Amino acid sequence: MITSRAAVAWAAGQPLTIEQVQVAPPRAGEVLVRIVATGVCHTDAFTLSGDDPEGIFPAILGHEGAGIVEEIGPGVTSVAVGDHVIPLYTPECGKCKFCLSGKTNLCQAIRATQGKGLMPDGTTRFSVGGKEVFHYMGTSTFSEYTVLPEIALAKINKAAPLEKVCLLGCGVTTGMGAVINTAKVEPGSTVAIFGLGGIGLSAIIGSVMAKAERIIGIDINTDKFDIARKLGATDCINPKDFDRPIQDVLVEMTDGGVDYSFECIGNVDVMRSALECCHKGWGESVIIGVAGAGQEIRTRPFQLVTGRVWRGSAFGGVRGRSELPDYVERYLKGDFELDTFITHTMGLDEINTAFDLMHEGKSIRSVVIY
Amino acid sequence: MITSRAAVAWAAGQPLTIEQVQVAPPRAGEVLVRIVATGVCHTDAFTLSGDDPEGIFPAILGHEGAGIVEEIGPGVTSVAVGDHVIPLYTPECGKCKFCLSGKTNLCQAIRATQGKGLMPDGTTRFSVGGKEVFHYMGTSTFSEYTVLPEIALAKINKAAPLEKVCLLGCGVTTGMGAVINTAKVEPGSTVAIFGLGGIGLSAIIGSVMAKAERIIGIDINTDKFDIARKLGATDCINPKDFDRPIQDVLVEMTDGGVDYSFECIGNVDVMRSALECCHKGWGESVIIGVAGAGQEIRTRPFQLVTGRVWRGSAFGGVRGRSELPDYVERYLKGDFELDTFITHTMGLDEINTAFDLMHEGKSIRSVVIY
Repeated sequence: MITSRAAVAWAAGQPLTIEQVQVAPPRAGEVLVRIVATGVCHTDAFTLSGDDPEGIFPAILGHEGAGIVEEIGPGVTSVAVGDHVIPLYTPECGKCKFCLSGKTNLCQAIRATQGKGLMPDGTTRFSVGGKEVFHYMGTSTFSEYTVLPEIALAKINKAAPLEKVCLLGCGVTTGMGAVINTAKVEPGSTVAIFGLGGIGLSAIIGSVMAKAERIIGIDINTDKFDIARKLGATDCINPKDFDRPIQDVLVEMTDGGVDYSFECIGNVDVMRSALECCHKGWGESVIIGVAGAGQEIRTRPFQLVTGRVWRGSAFGGVRGRSELPDYVERYLKGDFELDTFITHTMGLDEINTAFDLMHEGKSIRSVVIY
Repeated sequence: MITSRAAVAWAAGQPLTIEQVQVAPPRAGEVLVRIVATGVCHTDAFTLSGDDPEGIFPAILGHEGAGIVEEIGPGVTSVAVGDHVIPLYTPECGKCKFCLSGKTNLCQAIRATQGKGLMPDGTTRFSVGGKEVFHYMGTSTFSEYTVLPEIALAKINKAAPLEKVCLLGCGVTTGMGAVINTAKVEPGSTVAIFGLGGIGLSAIIGSVMAKAERIIGIDINTDKFDIARKLGATDCINPKDFDRPIQDVLVEMTDGGVDYSFECIGNVDVMRSALECCHKGWGESVIIGVAGAGQEIRTRPFQLVTGRVWRGSAFGGVRGRSELPDYVERYLKGDFELDTFITHTMGLDEINTAFDLMHEGKSIRSVVIY
C-alpha cells in the first residue's frame, strides 16, 4: 500500500479536492504506474457535471495521461519497471472476439468492470481514510500513482516527452485516428471538419498527415480560425454567415460535396449536415462527437442509397497497444506537433482551474504535471 | 421511323394500353434495340401509381429488359448489330467524375435528361399518332423496339437466354450486387436480410455466392420462407412472433449481432432495425429499399460511434458495362439460378396482369416475352 496525491471527485457538480489516497499494490495482471502528466478532457468534465449516466462517485477521474511503470503484479510480462506508458481507456487484450476480428479497436475484455469503476477482479485499488474510491475509465490519471490492467498500457519510446504525448491518450489520437485509421483519407481528398476544438484541430492535423488537398474547418466561433489555419485548414467557414444550410454551402464550394467529413462536436443536427455535405457516390462521414443521452441522428435514406456512408469512430479507431506507439514515433519524427494544443500547464493543486478554463472556452488543453 | 408494339402509360393510375408506337431512328451515339423480354418491377408500378414525384406521362415504362441490337446510330463503336444487350438505367460513360472515381457506379453523364424522360439530346424517339411519348429510366423496355444511348447498354454473351437474364437488368443484380459489390461480404459471415421479395431473395443468392455461413431471412409473410430456404437462407424469422424489437432478437441469436444486414423493403423503421441488429465494432447495414418521399431514417449516433456502418446501394453497386457481363457469365457457369424468380411469363398483351399479380403479392417476377 502506498500513498499518492490525487484529485478526488466526491460528488457530481463539486470541485475536486486534493487528497492523500491509499493505493493498493497491483494484483495479477495489473501494473502500478506513476503518472507524470495528464490532460484534462471534456469527458472528465462531462462526468463531473453529473450528466454522464454511467458516472459513479467518489472517483478519481482522468484518462489522458502518460507515466512510468513503478511496479508490476504477478504474471505481467509485456511491461517492466521503468517502461514509459500511456494508459488506455480502450484496452487491447488481443484475445477477445473484438480484438481477433481485426476490424475494430473496441476490445471488450474488461468493459463490464471498467464501466462500474472497478478493476477486472471487481474491486478498487483506491481508498481515502478507509473509504473506497472508484476508478474511472480504467485509467484514473488524476492520481500520481494509479493501477491499471496490463492490457490497458501502451508501451512507448522513452525519448517521448510525457508531458506532451499524454495528449495521445485521448483527444489528439481520437481526431487524428478518425482521419487516418477510420476514414483512411487518401492523398488529394477534400475534407470537412465540423467543430474546431481539440478533436477538430487534431482531425486537421490528421488530414494534413493524410495529404488531403483541401481541409475545410467549420465553426460558429471564428476565434478558432487562426489556429485551424495554422495547423493546416485551407478554408474556414462560419455557418452563421449563410442563410442556407451549411451542407448546401459546402456542396457548392466543393463542386458536389466533400470526400470525407468529421463531426467533432456531439450535435445531432451537425451530424446530419456532416453527412449531407458529402459527395454523392462516395462521400463518407465519420461521427466522433458524443451526443446527449437519447438524442438521435436522422436523414433521408436517399442520402445513403446514392452512395454516402455514415460511420463513427472511438479513440480514432486506434488499437492502443499495437498502433498507439507508432503515433508516438511519428510525433518524435516531427510528423505533427502537440505544443499548439497545450494552452495551459499547471500543478495538480490547480486542477480545478483547468475545468474552469475549459468551461469558459479559454483553453484547448490544460495539462497537469505532477 | 419504324413501328413497334408497346405498352403505353397514358396517365397515372390507369392500365397500360397496347399501341403501335412510332420509333425514330437512333441518332449519334444511340442504338435501336429489339427487346426480347422484360421483367415487370415494383418501380414500374410505383411510377404508374402516380406516387413517383418524377413520374411523367404519357410514357413507355419498363427497365428490366434484354434484347438484340437492331441498328446503331452515327459514332457508335462499342456495340454492333446483332449484339445481345441488357439496357442500363444506370449507364456507364467511363468519362464523368463519377465513373473516373472508381468508387461508384452512379454515372451522371445523362442523368438530367433521363430524369425528364428524354434522350441525351433533349428529345424523345417515341410517338403515337404524332403525339410525343416519353422515355422512362432511359430504357423503356415495354416497347418491342426502343432507343438507348450507347453508354446505357451492357453487351453480354450470346449464349445467355434473354428471357431469363433480363432480370439482371434490375432486381436480381440489385440484391446480389448489394451483397457482393457494395458490402463485399466475406466467407463465413452472418447476414440478415429484411424483406423476402425479389430483392431480398437475390440478396440471399448473393450471400450464398459470397459463402456467408449464416443467412437469416426476416419477413412478416411466412409464405416466403420456403423459397428463401430453398435459395439458401439458414434461418427465417417473423418479427410478429416476438414481443420485443427484432434487432434485439437478432443480436441475441447471433451472439452480438450480424456482420452484414440488408434492407430490401423501403421501410424506414426496418432500416433502423437492420442497422441496430449489426454487431458492435464492425457490422455494416446496407439500405437497398426505396422509402417514400420525405421519410427519414433515425438512430442514436452511439450505434455508429461503436463501430456500425450505415450505407446504401443502387443497382447493387454494379457498373453496368464493365461488371454486368460478368454476372451473366456467372449465371451461365451455374453460380446461381433465375428460374425460381420467374413465377409468371406472358405476352405483351397481358402486361396489366403482371401488375395485378404484383399488387396481389402473387408473383416474384412476371416476365413479358415479345
